Amino acid sequence: MSDAWSLVYHGFDPKAEGLREALCTLGNGYFATRGAAPEASDDGVHYPGTYVAGCYNRLKTEIAGRDVWNEDLVNVPNWLPLTFRPEGGEWFDLRDVELLDYRQELHLATGELRRALRYRDSGGRETSVASRRFVHMAHPHLAAVETTIEPLNWSGTLDVRSALDGRVVNNGVARYRRLNNRHLEAVETEAVGDDAIFLRVRTSQSRIDLAMAARTHVYPNGSLKNTDRRLVQDAAYIAHDLTVPITQGAALTVEKVIALYTSRDHAISECGLEARKAVGRARTYDALLRTHARAWEHIWRRFDIAIVPDREDGDDKRELRILRLHVFHLLQTASPNTIDLDVGVPPRGLHGEAYRGHIFWDELFIFPLLNLRMPEITRALLMYRYRRLDEARIAAQEAGFQGAMFPWQSGSNGREETQQLHLNPKSGRWLPDRSHRQRHVNAAIAYNVWHYYQVTEDLEFLSFFGAEMFLEIARFWASIATYNADHGRYEIRGVMGPDEYHDGYPDTDQAGLLNNAYTNLLAVWVLCRALEVIELLPQNRSQELCEKLAISPDELGRWDEISRQMRLVFFDDGILSQFEGYERLDEIDWDRYREKYEDIHRLDRILEAEGDTPNRYKLSKQADVLMLYYLFSTEEIKELLERLGYTFSPDAVPKTIEYYMARSSHGSTLSRIVDSWVLARSNRPGSWELFTEALESDVRDIQGGTTPEGIHLGAMAGTVDIVQRCYSGIDTRGDVLWLNPRIPEQLRCLRLRILYRGQPIELDMERDRLMVTSLPSAAHTIQLGFRDEIFQLRPEETREFSL
Amino acid sequence: MSDAWSLVYHGFDPKAEGLREALCTLGNGYFATRGAAPEASDDGVHYPGTYVAGCYNRLKTEIAGRDVWNEDLVNVPNWLPLTFRPEGGEWFDLRDVELLDYRQELHLATGELRRALRYRDSGGRETSVASRRFVHMAHPHLAAVETTIEPLNWSGTLDVRSALDGRVVNNGVARYRRLNNRHLEAVETEAVGDDAIFLRVRTSQSRIDLAMAARTHVYPNGSLKNTDRRLVQDAAYIAHDLTVPITQGAALTVEKVIALYTSRDHAISECGLEARKAVGRARTYDALLRTHARAWEHIWRRFDIAIVPDREDGDDKRELRILRLHVFHLLQTASPNTIDLDVGVPPRGLHGEAYRGHIFWDELFIFPLLNLRMPEITRALLMYRYRRLDEARIAAQEAGFQGAMFPWQSGSNGREETQQLHLNPKSGRWLPDRSHRQRHVNAAIAYNVWHYYQVTEDLEFLSFFGAEMFLEIARFWASIATYNADHGRYEIRGVMGPDEYHDGYPDTDQAGLLNNAYTNLLAVWVLCRALEVIELLPQNRSQELCEKLAISPDELGRWDEISRQMRLVFFDDGILSQFEGYERLDEIDWDRYREKYEDIHRLDRILEAEGDTPNRYKLSKQADVLMLYYLFSTEEIKELLERLGYTFSPDAVPKTIEYYMARSSHGSTLSRIVDSWVLARSNRPGSWELFTEALESDVRDIQGGTTPEGIHLGAMAGTVDIVQRCYSGIDTRGDVLWLNPRIPEQLRCLRLRILYRGQPIELDMERDRLMVTSLPSAAHTIQLGFRDEIFQLRPEETREFSL
Repeated sequence: MSDAWSLVYHGFDPKAEGLREALCTLGNGYFATRGAAPEASDDGVHYPGTYVAGCYNRLKTEIAGRDVWNEDLVNVPNWLPLTFRPEGGEWFDLRDVELLDYRQELHLATGELRRALRYRDSGGRETSVASRRFVHMAHPHLAAVETTIEPLNWSGTLDVRSALDGRVVNNGVARYRRLNNRHLEAVETEAVGDDAIFLRVRTSQSRIDLAMAARTHVYPNGSLKNTDRRLVQDAAYIAHDLTVPITQGAALTVEKVIALYTSRDHAISECGLEARKAVGRARTYDALLRTHARAWEHIWRRFDIAIVPDREDGDDKRELRILRLHVFHLLQTASPNTIDLDVGVPPRGLHGEAYRGHIFWDELFIFPLLNLRMPEITRALLMYRYRRLDEARIAAQEAGFQGAMFPWQSGSNGREETQQLHLNPKSGRWLPDRSHRQRHVNAAIAYNVWHYYQVTEDLEFLSFFGAEMFLEIARFWASIATYNADHGRYEIRGVMGPDEYHDGYPDTDQAGLLNNAYTNLLAVWVLCRALEVIELLPQNRSQELCEKLAISPDELGRWDEISRQMRLVFFDDGILSQFEGYERLDEIDWDRYREKYEDIHRLDRILEAEGDTPNRYKLSKQADVLMLYYLFSTEEIKELLERLGYTFSPDAVPKTIEYYMARSSHGSTLSRIVDSWVLARSNRPGSWELFTEALESDVRDIQGGTTPEGIHLGAMAGTVDIVQRCYSGIDTRGDVLWLNPRIPEQLRCLRLRILYRGQPIELDMERDRLMVTSLPSAAHTIQLGFRDEIFQLRPEETREFSL
Repeated sequence: MSDAWSLVYHGFDPKAEGLREALCTLGNGYFATRGAAPEASDDGVHYPGTYVAGCYNRLKTEIAGRDVWNEDLVNVPNWLPLTFRPEGGEWFDLRDVELLDYRQELHLATGELRRALRYRDSGGRETSVASRRFVHMAHPHLAAVETTIEPLNWSGTLDVRSALDGRVVNNGVARYRRLNNRHLEAVETEAVGDDAIFLRVRTSQSRIDLAMAARTHVYPNGSLKNTDRRLVQDAAYIAHDLTVPITQGAALTVEKVIALYTSRDHAISECGLEARKAVGRARTYDALLRTHARAWEHIWRRFDIAIVPDREDGDDKRELRILRLHVFHLLQTASPNTIDLDVGVPPRGLHGEAYRGHIFWDELFIFPLLNLRMPEITRALLMYRYRRLDEARIAAQEAGFQGAMFPWQSGSNGREETQQLHLNPKSGRWLPDRSHRQRHVNAAIAYNVWHYYQVTEDLEFLSFFGAEMFLEIARFWASIATYNADHGRYEIRGVMGPDEYHDGYPDTDQAGLLNNAYTNLLAVWVLCRALEVIELLPQNRSQELCEKLAISPDELGRWDEISRQMRLVFFDDGILSQFEGYERLDEIDWDRYREKYEDIHRLDRILEAEGDTPNRYKLSKQADVLMLYYLFSTEEIKELLERLGYTFSPDAVPKTIEYYMARSSHGSTLSRIVDSWVLARSNRPGSWELFTEALESDVRDIQGGTTPEGIHLGAMAGTVDIVQRCYSGIDTRGDVLWLNPRIPEQLRCLRLRILYRGQPIELDMERDRLMVTSLPSAAHTIQLGFRDEIFQLRPEETREFSL
């Protein structure tokens, strides 16, 4: 059985390899590498994916007679190939041999992947192979793989081949295969010194150079041996072949250290020169592993979360192990190494090609975890948005709005990259796609700026970068809102909420919805906070910004007015309507569809294949309205509704939750996070059930086939954040760190360490007790709120509360 | 006469053009452009330089039979060529016509360069030409030039040529012309749409793509007219030729807007695509000028300094105008647009090719100004060093030391780029160069980290980046110090101080000096502050860093020990000796040399040409020891000396100043800054005289020919900082903003606005009165120190002190 620090698979299962590859991807925020087998297939077509952060490539592709822009995450040259053949036979291939034993372990504590196998080949030779690898967390340009081969019943010679392969294609997502999938052009290959090879490729459209060097050493009987090498060289492929005598019972270790640089990197002279220099300087596998493991140790000290379930039977480490796996994968995409890169967080991480590396709104689920652990990462990711503010301004202008309108799917230069058409694999039809109307992504960005500031009090960031984005987003919301004299209120037309099942009204060609509750309330929130942001800044900075953006007092007055007169629609019983006209839609016959189809997560595809549309029904992919209770505390919702002149009734909350949960297909992995969160106080068993389901999303690939396309980073971070913020009741508001723990029945205790305003704080919770300790630091005393009371917590002070 | 916001030249002076070009360079932190004439010379060889920040190019060159690495600042394609010919004659060339009138104005407030001239050509045609241009401060990728041509006594047709020229070479520095000066390779040229041209070049070694697009519009009689264009196209040159009818007395305006992107830029898809898109979107010259001027207005509000001299005769705005010119030029190299770039501050700015864009220690003179006005820029420049920390670690290791050893001349990837040989133009000899032994650059970097933190209290930066650099530098100093049992003290061997006249002892081949006072005392200061840094960080971060860097308590003990037992050498009268053995050197016969040579700033070159060496004499290029009084207050020096067990005698200070000032040739422009500073309290007239001399360094090119090679950014910033910190007595120490003004007799009053710990503060000083006002802000109350007393200053509070 796996412990809480490792993921173990026994046996080789070709059918599960896609899933395993995604779950065993190794990365460091700069690049990541999939690939399950200890040797890589060498057929020049199919490769394990290897991605590099921030390298996008944009190609025009013809689909279904229409031009479609297609921006792809770049596969970097494959550095894994390290294979062998005994006695000049066939190169080792897992699929062609008789496997006697196979075991794969992902070590979360150290970020190392290990594989051990024994096999018998057609010549009756039995051999054991042990392989391990990592992508270095402290030296982001380095990775290493080591393979140890031991002949169990034979002696002879062994050929070893160590290659770099730039012929990779993007083929990780089956339904994208009709798109152009070749994005790398060969530039050069060459030998470097005595022991290394070098490969340079260039992305075909974005002209990014990727340079990789690999050094291969062999250690028969544990000590380094110089061996003659033969160079195998092609335009985009290069290998060193080494022939070594090998003796029964004596292990041969082959070590390959690689360095990857791109022309986008900072502090380089030229990426090829840096890559060659770096492998020349690199130490051995074991020495590199030590500094790599130490970096992970430090990361875990900041990011770990400890839960002890209240049971002793079965796999009592399962939840903890999966939570750690989730943190582990988040940190492969966003890590200390991300801080100096111009990158966002793609929804599938650096783990797979789905969504082509575009940046969506998933940060909303990811930032809270990062904010409270290593806010430098959040700051860097917000800078990614800030750099694309000009593009968002132009997008707003072109759409007839003011301010900045960030795209739903943001491409490399901040351009809208949402597909115009999408394929329903169930019907085989290409359909118009209106999802770019999800303007709510703009509210998510503003929300993230605000919460980064709340947690860090980083006035310098807010002043210099955040406020400008915030004000431009507020202005966008003010300009998209139109006054409707019939209601005496402002409304927002033609948008989509997070629930992608609804992109318009049935029996009309008009796109988008009217008064989506989620969008409208978020817009109100943004406008309120924008007015607050102006007050927070030093007066000379507010003045500068208002002049630069030409914001007049009249405009601020309009923001205030809209924030008090936005329209929301309620059902008669006080339940907030997902959008105007929702009440006129039909109820769907859930039983009929559950009976007819094995999996109804994607009811939209089912309905379309049947010639129907989800727009006709009261159903959702994920419940929009409930997102409001995920983002805001009940107090905040009450405040917003009362500002708008609506009545807030506490009774309506559980009714609203029940109403929408009954009508959700959980077509998004984020849906369970939200639902578990909103149930946490009212229905703890139900919340726990959804939480554990969400935990399994990727580990068991519950949507059937989506994990091999890349993991679901938002859902992964979201599960950790349920434990971190929802169970602990953390709320960072008004310069106070509020705590209001409510631990589920299923847990005995919960421990975590957060960073609040520069001050490390330890939280230790049991069912009836909360201990808060402020660690030694030169930072300031913080304000701690427990239920309704505020306390001062000095560095090195501990406070205990009864629950 | 020029006012305090402009620099005006009358008449065209070919001999002064190099100087004027440097002083009229326009830039925005991303790129800068020289070039004085309204038309550019079109001969394919000599061009006005145009530089782009952070693009270095490294080539191996053979000099004097030795390999020399030569890393150059990259000239980007020349975008200035916008020329014309009346009636199909010769293209306009200033040198070939009869100039009737010529006036050139650099407008500091708006960052616009204007030229107006009238001329008569060989056909007797009189024409007036008005030209203006800017490099955009708010849109860093844009620049624009506008030329208005009016035939005064003729009508006919006019050909206009608007070009982009990638055939530029680096030839701005005469003595570098034997080095390889061609760094750009042609890639492509093409027309874009109806009205634009496009050029792409690539740097030959660093493989950086530079893409430039230019849009040319003509406005006869003020309104846009579509005109047929002919394309003139070559591999690295492209132009649009337009023919326009022109009438006596009717002005024709030609507008050219350009966009420059490089493959190093953030938030791009591909640099060529972005450049084309940007000129397509760009508005007119006037519209762009408005947003450009507003950006400058905001910058001036933060950076301006006001002084009123106590005289009414003569040019009473001269000092103020030059101070503003200095701020103006600093901001062309380091500006808000620098914040997101991986760049340092080259000693000659982006203004010229001298020192090839390498990064030295000049930041020491530049950061104090930036820290107190826009610390975001300093933070970004410190990140430039942090990114090169690994390279500095390897340099230390290779030299047999521990920690990090930053290079004296830092190249693109942080590698030591100090020349191994240098040319003495006086003797024509290539000589071994030992200046890489100026290890004191490491103390300067630590000093800058510390003072950035003191001014901003940015614990996040210190914790995440600054501390690691600081500790590694401290460790370097600890490892280069060796214990000498004879003295019972530690000493440092084989280094050079800032005074480059001394690189060893006479009559020995051994390089470097023993116990350079400047180096040793700075090393002590770094070790003391390093111990303090560890205490400042949150405990978990200190622990992380100590583990990562393997710093043991024993090592910290050793730092403490060295910081108490470093050796300094004093003369008998208590004057600190520049280095051990200085007292045995000869006095030089100053009169003899002053008589024999017109200019003795560079006595080193004179002596070498005479077969002698400055190593034999008690003389300095700039006085090392006095730098200590520039960097530290008397209280700090006393503290350091007493820690070392030496006696501090206040009497020794003036004696020390007098001793070394008498022996300095001011071979560096930084020398006068330091000397003016250290005299400010004891000899106000002498200080003022040196200050005004320093002010003239570039404006009058007092070193004779060095300004055309690029301005002296350290000296420029230094003069402003004399007014800012020295006259106001600003000292940021121990969480207190100390003020102790001493205004020179020559000034009536002095006003400036600084930013201290996020709080904008206005200082208004007269001879007998100091007013301190804290502007409205949500920031914190600050601690204000006046003489020996500490006050709390709340936002919106004013305090007045008598002087």
